[in-house]
Amino acid sequence: MVAESTDVAVGIDIGGTNIKVGLVDAEGAILNRLILKTAAYPEPQSLVEDLAGRIQRLVEGNSLLGVGIGAPNGNYYRGSIEHAPNLEWKGVVPLADWMTEATGVPCLLTNDANAAALGEMLFGDAKGMKDFLFITLGTGLGSGLVVDGQLVYGHDGAAGELGHVIVQPSGRLCGCGRRGCLEQYASATGLLLTYRELNPEASSNTTSREVFDRAAAGEQAALETFEHTAQVLGLALANSVAYTQPEAIFLFGGLAAAGDILLKPVREHFEANLLNIYRGKTTIRPSGLVESDAAIHGAASLIWQTA
Amino acid sequence: MVAESTDVAVGIDIGGTNIKVGLVDAEGAILNRLILKTAAYPEPQSLVEDLAGRIQRLVEGNSLLGVGIGAPNGNYYRGSIEHAPNLEWKGVVPLADWMTEATGVPCLLTNDANAAALGEMLFGDAKGMKDFLFITLGTGLGSGLVVDGQLVYGHDGAAGELGHVIVQPSGRLCGCGRRGCLEQYASATGLLLTYRELNPEASSNTTSREVFDRAAAGEQAALETFEHTAQVLGLALANSVAYTQPEAIFLFGGLAAAGDILLKPVREHFEANLLNIYRGKTTIRPSGLVESDAAIHGAASLIWQTA
Repeated sequence: MVAESTDVAVGIDIGGTNIKVGLVDAEGAILNRLILKTAAYPEPQSLVEDLAGRIQRLVEGNSLLGVGIGAPNGNYYRGSIEHAPNLEWKGVVPLADWMTEATGVPCLLTNDANAAALGEMLFGDAKGMKDFLFITLGTGLGSGLVVDGQLVYGHDGAAGELGHVIVQPSGRLCGCGRRGCLEQYASATGLLLTYRELNPEASSNTTSREVFDRAAAGEQAALETFEHTAQVLGLALANSVAYTQPEAIFLFGGLAAAGDILLKPVREHFEANLLNIYRGKTTIRPSGLVESDAAIHGAASLIWQTA
Repeated sequence: MVAESTDVAVGIDIGGTNIKVGLVDAEGAILNRLILKTAAYPEPQSLVEDLAGRIQRLVEGNSLLGVGIGAPNGNYYRGSIEHAPNLEWKGVVPLADWMTEATGVPCLLTNDANAAALGEMLFGDAKGMKDFLFITLGTGLGSGLVVDGQLVYGHDGAAGELGHVIVQPSGRLCGCGRRGCLEQYASATGLLLTYRELNPEASSNTTSREVFDRAAAGEQAALETFEHTAQVLGLALANSVAYTQPEAIFLFGGLAAAGDILLKPVREHFEANLLNIYRGKTTIRPSGLVESDAAIHGAASLIWQTA
């Protein structure tokens, strides 16, 4: 008698600190998982070798459909991580090809925010939606754009970098070397920069969580910080509707967890800046993904989307 | 013996002044055409009745696959013209349904810039391209966005209004009632507004053609006008790459006909404002459509695209 075997996908999220690996079934249940330290793999080849064995044990008797990887600066078409500033691995790393060879199953790779957008579509609150925008508000601002049920990769595989839309020419210096990028205003980093402008006495160790606590306690500078952040983000999101007119815009990540203290003014500035034909037709809502599982869900969605 | 019959589509472009109708074959040849005055049809129903007969005569012995319509404020999903400010027809006009009923063939409708983008894909220089952006620089700024070989209609059928991206909060008043829309800077209208700011002595009757002639003759204010227009447009186009990373951006319409006097500085500002991963991968080029036929080609493409 043959043991019952479940179809599963492996989702791998590669971050600057941790590598999360999870076994995900068709309903999004994470059947098994493990966490590795990125620093333990100074060469990507050593990760591939190690992972191949670990995945085999993780899968056990189940039927592995494929491996999805979300990574910073991931390029979907080439399946490679390209010049990721937050990783030790330099240059272009063709991780998807290596993993396919090492595991014997199809392996797909995209950037982490794109993967999370797919996760929202398959396992989160974008189920059944054809057109939506997914925004992660963490240290930076990442995004994934879904049009007519498909993630937008663009001509060269790197579409959907809304954090690097220039909203303030000659504004704040961005890590990308240019000035005035959206993520320098609408992210945990941007929030802190705004707070220090409004409250020059603030300690340089202040965290975005503390700014939230102070806003919740009614501190004027903290409240104005959220208002200013919402003003920039609300306008940028209103402008994004003129591109692909999404049904919903999902906000995910640390800053999105601030809830109404951010969401309420964002929605106000969003609606106030919409072209008349767009008004009342796009909702801004928190992500339906569980923060701790989102990266694994997203990466595994690369496989489940095509299964 | 049966006469030889060619498959044809009818393309109809509805403008504020003229209604252009053309019979288009699979290669884009316009076999037959006519022009009607929009003012002759104060009620859209009278146009439908009149067109049904005219189309029948236009088609002659050929095989009519369908009728495509490009119109201001056209909504693809509903096949309707909705609250078009430049037409006498008020409210929502379900023109596609009426035309389908009157002609007995499938009739599809979208906005004029979307139709022209399809025309570029089927009969112009975007043949074989999967991802591109089409921009019309006329009185206003219209746009059509193609992602993975499909025109982007969005959740509600009104995607791709880049002329109404706000580039200058509290900037110039736009016809849409808001301030700082791209088309108030990058269009024939915007060019003239800029020119009058830079040259307050200029007659209020100055045309964009005259500004071009003066720039070509070396007039400082006119040259600065093109530089300023290119600066705003170049940045806006660079930002648009962060959404869908197109292979090419096509510029069409009166202002695009200015050639290098506009294109050269637009390309410079575009490249200077691109995120590093996007540099050198998207070209800005003039449309390959013939101005006089573009609207008919575009409208007919709605049918040929699905044929």
